[in-house]
Amino acid sequence: MGGEKIKMAVHPIDYRYGSREMREIFEERSRLKYQLMVEGVLAETLAEFGKIPKKQAGIIKKRANLKFVKLERVKEIEKETRHDVVAMLKALGEVCGKASKYIHLTATSYDIVDTALALQVKDGLNLLLKKGKIALTSCLGFSQRYKKLVVIGRTHGQHALPITLGFKFANFADKLGEDLFRLKEDKKYLQGKFSGAVGTYASQKMLGLNQNFEKAIMKKLNLLPADISTQVAPRENLARIICDIAVLAGTIEQIAKEIRNLQRTEIAELAEPFGKNQVGSSAMPQKRNPWESENICSNVKIVRSCVFPALENIALEHERDLTNSAAERSVLPTVFVLMDDALGRLARILKKLVVFPENIKRNLELTGGRVLAEAVLTELTKRGMPRLASHQLLREISKKKNFREELFKNKEIARYISQKELKKIMDYKNYIGFSVEKTEKIIKKWKNFSP
Amino acid sequence: MGGEKIKMAVHPIDYRYGSREMREIFEERSRLKYQLMVEGVLAETLAEFGKIPKKQAGIIKKRANLKFVKLERVKEIEKETRHDVVAMLKALGEVCGKASKYIHLTATSYDIVDTALALQVKDGLNLLLKKGKIALTSCLGFSQRYKKLVVIGRTHGQHALPITLGFKFANFADKLGEDLFRLKEDKKYLQGKFSGAVGTYASQKMLGLNQNFEKAIMKKLNLLPADISTQVAPRENLARIICDIAVLAGTIEQIAKEIRNLQRTEIAELAEPFGKNQVGSSAMPQKRNPWESENICSNVKIVRSCVFPALENIALEHERDLTNSAAERSVLPTVFVLMDDALGRLARILKKLVVFPENIKRNLELTGGRVLAEAVLTELTKRGMPRLASHQLLREISKKKNFREELFKNKEIARYISQKELKKIMDYKNYIGFSVEKTEKIIKKWKNFSP
Amino acid sequence: MGGEKIKMAVHPIDYRYGSREMREIFEERSRLKYQLMVEGVLAETLAEFGKIPKKQAGIIKKRANLKFVKLERVKEIEKETRHDVVAMLKALGEVCGKASKYIHLTATSYDIVDTALALQVKDGLNLLLKKGKIALTSCLGFSQRYKKLVVIGRTHGQHALPITLGFKFANFADKLGEDLFRLKEDKKYLQGKFSGAVGTYASQKMLGLNQNFEKAIMKKLNLLPADISTQVAPRENLARIICDIAVLAGTIEQIAKEIRNLQRTEIAELAEPFGKNQVGSSAMPQKRNPWESENICSNVKIVRSCVFPALENIALEHERDLTNSAAERSVLPTVFVLMDDALGRLARILKKLVVFPENIKRNLELTGGRVLAEAVLTELTKRGMPRLASHQLLREISKKKNFREELFKNKEIARYISQKELKKIMDYKNYIGFSVEKTEKIIKKWKNFSP
Amino acid sequence: MGGEKIKMAVHPIDYRYGSREMREIFEERSRLKYQLMVEGVLAETLAEFGKIPKKQAGIIKKRANLKFVKLERVKEIEKETRHDVVAMLKALGEVCGKASKYIHLTATSYDIVDTALALQVKDGLNLLLKKGKIALTSCLGFSQRYKKLVVIGRTHGQHALPITLGFKFANFADKLGEDLFRLKEDKKYLQGKFSGAVGTYASQKMLGLNQNFEKAIMKKLNLLPADISTQVAPRENLARIICDIAVLAGTIEQIAKEIRNLQRTEIAELAEPFGKNQVGSSAMPQKRNPWESENICSNVKIVRSCVFPALENIALEHERDLTNSAAERSVLPTVFVLMDDALGRLARILKKLVVFPENIKRNLELTGGRVLAEAVLTELTKRGMPRLASHQLLREISKKKNFREELFKNKEIARYISQKELKKIMDYKNYIGFSVEKTEKIIKKWKNFSP
Repeated sequence: MGGEKIKMAVHPIDYRYGSREMREIFEERSRLKYQLMVEGVLAETLAEFGKIPKKQAGIIKKRANLKFVKLERVKEIEKETRHDVVAMLKALGEVCGKASKYIHLTATSYDIVDTALALQVKDGLNLLLKKGKIALTSCLGFSQRYKKLVVIGRTHGQHALPITLGFKFANFADKLGEDLFRLKEDKKYLQGKFSGAVGTYASQKMLGLNQNFEKAIMKKLNLLPADISTQVAPRENLARIICDIAVLAGTIEQIAKEIRNLQRTEIAELAEPFGKNQVGSSAMPQKRNPWESENICSNVKIVRSCVFPALENIALEHERDLTNSAAERSVLPTVFVLMDDALGRLARILKKLVVFPENIKRNLELTGGRVLAEAVLTELTKRGMPRLASHQLLREISKKKNFREELFKNKEIARYISQKELKKIMDYKNYIGFSVEKTEKIIKKWKNFSP
Repeated sequence: MGGEKIKMAVHPIDYRYGSREMREIFEERSRLKYQLMVEGVLAETLAEFGKIPKKQAGIIKKRANLKFVKLERVKEIEKETRHDVVAMLKALGEVCGKASKYIHLTATSYDIVDTALALQVKDGLNLLLKKGKIALTSCLGFSQRYKKLVVIGRTHGQHALPITLGFKFANFADKLGEDLFRLKEDKKYLQGKFSGAVGTYASQKMLGLNQNFEKAIMKKLNLLPADISTQVAPRENLARIICDIAVLAGTIEQIAKEIRNLQRTEIAELAEPFGKNQVGSSAMPQKRNPWESENICSNVKIVRSCVFPALENIALEHERDLTNSAAERSVLPTVFVLMDDALGRLARILKKLVVFPENIKRNLELTGGRVLAEAVLTELTKRGMPRLASHQLLREISKKKNFREELFKNKEIARYISQKELKKIMDYKNYIGFSVEKTEKIIKKWKNFSP
Repeated sequence: MGGEKIKMAVHPIDYRYGSREMREIFEERSRLKYQLMVEGVLAETLAEFGKIPKKQAGIIKKRANLKFVKLERVKEIEKETRHDVVAMLKALGEVCGKASKYIHLTATSYDIVDTALALQVKDGLNLLLKKGKIALTSCLGFSQRYKKLVVIGRTHGQHALPITLGFKFANFADKLGEDLFRLKEDKKYLQGKFSGAVGTYASQKMLGLNQNFEKAIMKKLNLLPADISTQVAPRENLARIICDIAVLAGTIEQIAKEIRNLQRTEIAELAEPFGKNQVGSSAMPQKRNPWESENICSNVKIVRSCVFPALENIALEHERDLTNSAAERSVLPTVFVLMDDALGRLARILKKLVVFPENIKRNLELTGGRVLAEAVLTELTKRGMPRLASHQLLREISKKKNFREELFKNKEIARYISQKELKKIMDYKNYIGFSVEKTEKIIKKWKNFSP
Repeated sequence: MGGEKIKMAVHPIDYRYGSREMREIFEERSRLKYQLMVEGVLAETLAEFGKIPKKQAGIIKKRANLKFVKLERVKEIEKETRHDVVAMLKALGEVCGKASKYIHLTATSYDIVDTALALQVKDGLNLLLKKGKIALTSCLGFSQRYKKLVVIGRTHGQHALPITLGFKFANFADKLGEDLFRLKEDKKYLQGKFSGAVGTYASQKMLGLNQNFEKAIMKKLNLLPADISTQVAPRENLARIICDIAVLAGTIEQIAKEIRNLQRTEIAELAEPFGKNQVGSSAMPQKRNPWESENICSNVKIVRSCVFPALENIALEHERDLTNSAAERSVLPTVFVLMDDALGRLARILKKLVVFPENIKRNLELTGGRVLAEAVLTELTKRGMPRLASHQLLREISKKKNFREELFKNKEIARYISQKELKKIMDYKNYIGFSVEKTEKIIKKWKNFSP
């Protein structure tokens, strides 16, 4: 266990990724902070229920925070007790004088730990939602700006049919929105617990308390009490939250991957914003690498990998074992800090994403109009040409080198469609269906999303 | 690709696990069945929107099912076309005569595939929920039966405080219920899509159709249309469903693990029901192995492992690539069939789970009453003995060999608590807190859950 | 459990993926086949050690195979006994007459099951290595054919420096080779076990047998005995094999992804071979989708996901629990059949992979020679121009529209390099370093690899 | 990106788990340290090959370390350049004066990064092996001490047959040994690379260098050069190492789980060593929780979860993309530091693991001798009683309450076995097979293992 003098930063969430705000929620000290907060509320509530003197409760409430109780002292004590909550209690006791004997009454360690955890996760979710909202807004803004810019749609990496750039990102925005909506829902299920060593409230009952006591504590903390618990709250909620964050990570991965693909030298429709003094490659100065998007795709793998321990943590033995504990210490900061980082990056990219309309145009015409064959086909059959025949005809013309030219000079087609009409059909912007309307609908759906 | 004559069963969901009903939903043929169903509804809707003749639509609707279109024929065609949906369309065409030219109009393959998939997953979820409800009912029944039977509660594998057997399983029931509730919620988000090759409805628009067309199709199929889509519906919903099933799997793993632990030779509080001719061990006839619960714990690992491909499937490129497809073909049947199997097994076990009250009683007393030290402690401090002193006193007595005896003859304690009162305190059933009330509350909460 | 009359194919390895040979190794019946094989060898060895009559052993040996013992019969019995090995023993007994009493002597079920499993996995590995060798050979052949074809090398999706197409695939070939080499090594560690119910050989010792008995059995089966075991052989070896297959899957994913990327409409340097009657897209006939490579990338996700249950299977309780069993029934066929499918596909693709030299050339020149800036830079500094100055100069020229032209007319450069020399420097094929030599080295390294 | 003033510890490997030595290998600063080391060797080698002046090379070599180049300065520069290697080069340049122009010649960033990574991983593996050897030695010592202490063997959580405690841990030791052996093998495959921006050595060739240059660098660093590479070394080796560490984690999980199970209140055969001032439970002072073993089981989940990103990192695009980078920054320290922690813990536990012989004895007799039924059965049939009859007889007696007593007074048995002989058969220590011999063999196998 810890205690070294020299400060080392080992994990990249400790020195490289994530915003300061998010790291503050999950740093070592914060764990202590939330636990002290719960102890304070416990004392206060005990007094309200007439179980301990108001004055002493007041002292505890006032001192149960990081200003009075120092992490360093707790860690010092823990080296002897080898039990972090007991160490916290002793350290709190040291600053509460005579009030110390009223600390932690009726509680078991995990009443504190799990309730504190719920508070911490809630703050984490709130910040994630806030960051997510910013990314969503950037994405909607981008969709709005380019809702009419026609680009080629691709399936299997192949040119398929035209869409608009705004429509492409409206799809992303809707996914982002849905993912955030689910995370917001998850907050509703966050539960604390104050049910004692095996979940039966035995020691509370003995002191003449009933379940209103737990409810009162949770109300003060703005949490729900678990409907039933053992020594610990069920781990399912944590697992679901981490799964839902991993789903969000998947969406973000998709957007980042899209930017990377559209920034390829051969495609070059989009590019990440590029700092003035930024160096792309030490050996090849001409390159503009989509490294922010690559970074997102990389950290997403770590977020996703945390799903597994979260799921394995559910099946604890009997009224609890400890095998969830250390794993949660790793998983929670990792997931929240890396997602915070990825969301922040994404928002930054989307805000200033560079668009190259000339390349977009060039790419559109890369198949010489062949991607509009479907449009011509539909029109031909609509106007009475047998489907099979028109299908075969288009296939033949498709094989010719200059598709567009051949199309216009084909006599069979001319019998059904005038040159003027054909020109209209062969205009990409006339075959984007409801791209613009859909984009607008999605913008409307999410623009007022409140995280 | 396939085509062998000799039928081999390779994967255990093909020969060993899962109910017939669940396998029927996910067998190869069913995929075809749901796709034909969508083609039928498409034709019908096209006719209603005046785009194809009613009569011909009627023929398609009538023949778009497994009675007319045989899987064998589709597979034969697929060998040439190497595209399963095209093969399906050709096979359907073969049985629709002249109506065949109206098949699949305006649609892209994935309008059919993804909408059919949503229908299949919905049926799968419905069956899973039905099975889940049966397991939940068994669990609630067990809780009810044993709500007052006092057993030792354990944390870290160590005796902690008494609870009741019903309370233990009420915790499980509440988890089961919550997991099922979430899966039921997930159904609401199931979406079909009918938006064409890149999600813009271009070919529909050309035929004078608008988005009411998609809505009409989905309404007939009792599905929601995706708010926006590319060639495919977003994969997030599938990922969330599989995550939520994996969470349920975690709960089931926990229950199965508990049964295995409580059936240990040294504990022997519970035992799986045991068939008359069943053989436990070929070498050791005396053993009664909890093999059904072990089987659950084993298959749960497979269910959990499917979360990963489901999450990796989200980040498709551009307006779709195909890398989700084969993975979904594996993941969906695996997850649904194995969970169906596990839920069925669990329900069977819980229904006839054997309880050994005498062993339960013996185990309760294993620490000689030491687990009630907390109760005595609380009472002593309540009656005025300083907390520190009472703590030290109890610790001293705890070290003696015969805790209970020493307790009763201790003079210090006698000053605060009479023998009669002490006897009451040292009665396990008086230190189970609100075990019974909580159990009843949970039973009430879930007994009318409608899946 | 099974037994339905109607045959359903549920999992895609049962109807869609994998070669017949591989499915035969892992089908339900084969498990029985390998187990019978072990029982036969057991009887034979018991006779050789003088513990049972040679004649009776001969009968068992002769009948312990699928010709005599039918899977259907075993499953019928298993429905009663609910123990698959006991059912196998009974079914074998039924066909061995009076010799039946000598069946399975001294053995515990898992002596048979685990030894049979090792045989099965060995056959699976052998076939995988054979398939892998074919893919490796195709890859080496492709490298050889295109070892001198200059293509642009890309990092971060951006044009970097020229390489050769053969060099690119030589990198892949080397990875394939190393992966196969490791799998070949893994075979050496495959172990059977014949150590009885808890690994102590107690019943063998009682019959006067010592560990030479186990050695004799394993020798006949061409396996090593585990150095020590419990009721089961350690699960680590299975885990390592599945990890190593997952690593191979990663390599194959990389190759398939590369083909998909190089087949993009905008890049179009490579294309999967395309069947004559194959349909690419039902709506867009002009497309040529890399669907085989997409399929590989999809199934790879499933293979990778099997690593988790394999790792979770290691930590069995005490002298074994059963929680590895069902999971292995899923994992092994899934991993082997899907990898067999992927390797087969890859070999087919690589054998006829279409190369478009004109597109390769066009892409090379896409940056107008800028990718050779490094070469000019190096030459300039070599010839005495200060590094910083030359760096700045090149950077300036890079910004001009026509890089190549500007370079040739730049007077500063002309002071150091003649036009003729510059032309040579600006020829892509002169800046491919040791691409050809490396390619040849790798071909030499692996061409005689014996699987 | 980082840069905050206030030092926060967020991830538990930064404040809670792992030894100082291991954290030092993987802390942020060390990454820089290894990279500087490679730059130094590069300069030295360039001089030896006559490409830069010896004196200047000497300056670079001397200053390329943390004494001269400070992490703080590198991070400061990186904020502008947003490229960590370029920042490192600039910072190194600042301390090398005129020699600075010879820094990094012919190299691409990843020549440095990947070679440095191989050095770091090698140091990590060496320390892990050293720690592993200590745990292995503790395990062998425990096996030796208790090689003759008879304990009940358990399968499916049920009493099966007697073994010895030493034999149980000899099984664990053999697994540990094999896992370590594989990790030691993995070291052989660790490779650096010095092949330039796309792996072709183009810039080296231009300077008149050939592949001997790379070999010379690697020789100095005691690494192998990759047989072929792109911009980066293949990620397969890292993946394999992390898989092999995850396998080791599985073994350690198994041992820790075994200790937890054997420390259960009802079993109580073993107990973790317990510190004097350590507090087991704040509410229940009598408990002795196996929290160190629980901690191991918890951290193992995190180690295992790192396998996934490591496998996903293999399939980089083209001649590399960056999506492995951030993930490796998380995975490597996490895996190495947590495994270091777990191995250290395990060694400590095994060294002072408390054994309770009286409880072991009590448990052995828990089935009243029934676990020896197999021994009696074997003896009866050996002496001529028909197998079926003896089987039935034993089964009958097994059902009686007092098995042992009934056995001794049974007349049928008495016809075959004398009381004296029966007593010997019914002595547990006579049915432990080759437990002791196997234990000794395993001790011999591993005691001189050199990590």
